[in-house]
Amino acid sequence: MELIKNLQWRYAVKKYTDELVSEDKIDQIIEAINLSASSCGIQPYRLILVTNPEVRQKLAEGSFNTQIQASSHLLVFAAFNKITSEYIADYVAMMEEQRNLEAGTLTPLKDAVTSFFSTQTPEQNVIWSSKQAYIGLGTALIAAAELKVDATPMEGFDPELFDNVLGLSEKNLHASVIISFGYRDADNDYLASMPKVRLPIGQLLTKVK
Amino acid sequence: MELIKNLQWRYAVKKYTDELVSEDKIDQIIEAINLSASSCGIQPYRLILVTNPEVRQKLAEGSFNTQIQASSHLLVFAAFNKITSEYIADYVAMMEEQRNLEAGTLTPLKDAVTSFFSTQTPEQNVIWSSKQAYIGLGTALIAAAELKVDATPMEGFDPELFDNVLGLSEKNLHASVIISFGYRDADNDYLASMPKVRLPIGQLLTKVK
Repeated sequence: MELIKNLQWRYAVKKYTDELVSEDKIDQIIEAINLSASSCGIQPYRLILVTNPEVRQKLAEGSFNTQIQASSHLLVFAAFNKITSEYIADYVAMMEEQRNLEAGTLTPLKDAVTSFFSTQTPEQNVIWSSKQAYIGLGTALIAAAELKVDATPMEGFDPELFDNVLGLSEKNLHASVIISFGYRDADNDYLASMPKVRLPIGQLLTKVK
Repeated sequence: MELIKNLQWRYAVKKYTDELVSEDKIDQIIEAINLSASSCGIQPYRLILVTNPEVRQKLAEGSFNTQIQASSHLLVFAAFNKITSEYIADYVAMMEEQRNLEAGTLTPLKDAVTSFFSTQTPEQNVIWSSKQAYIGLGTALIAAAELKVDATPMEGFDPELFDNVLGLSEKNLHASVIISFGYRDADNDYLASMPKVRLPIGQLLTKVK
């Protein structure tokens, strides 16, 4: 399977060359993320693609992940803080439009989703939207690998700093997880030649037959 | 890109035919999940593949997701409740073995990871491990699509019921998210012919140049 080959090829790059990833490849990665599944289908996160060097320098402050700054592109998965009834209504209206349904056809869906989120605490909504972003992160890693673009998924960053520098809170967003793109500097990245470490399948999987 | 075609092909199937997915294809999906990235690389979740009909009937009780029972295979992503120092030590020892490193070479890594998790609350650890499972879920959806196996990712299940029926708590696990596999019953699944709904890229993405 191509996917397995691509997953075996990738690793979390520690050191990149100076080569830039083409905009066409970045566009394809973004398109793949946009096609990722999300719970209730409402895509409760946004993407921020940062190439500006000054902004990236600020974002990298205090992090052990030099890739925040030293890579071709930085992509921030910014998940929703609140799932508002207005957002759900707008999204369902877009669903009706994209599916050529009469306005109001999906009102029962809208009501069910709105009702569900009204029972959730603000903390639960933040966690939920962040989890959906991680599905997109899984897609991003695979998209990059198919294009032979290297990537590094990272949790080691300062979410408050990201919120401040990128003005996320005012947009109802928080930095959930980030990923850098570029090309591995195989000669200077100690991890480039290391075998991938994974559990034996028998330790990962239990069957209930 | 193959990935984009595969993502466009897939959707969250509501109704499956009776056809079973071959064990070979399920094995490939599991292998792909095992190759997914996870934070610190320590794979803090396990998979439970349920085919037993009585167990699946119990798991489906009270859920609107009939696919829990009515599909070829059900796969449970069961994430860790605690990230123990024993687990980290065992995993790092496995890293050393798989990378042919002398025992003790990765002690600094082990100490750094152990120290990080000791600063996290039990709730933070549960959320963290569950997020890593969602990366694997993203992979599972793509693996299935490449094999032209249909799938349904689901959050609509009773985690306590899953814990009880599958005995998860005693294994330091909780049901994080689930996915069913099978083949779409296109004639009887209203969603099979519906266009996929997604945000315009301009709404998903902001560029900071």
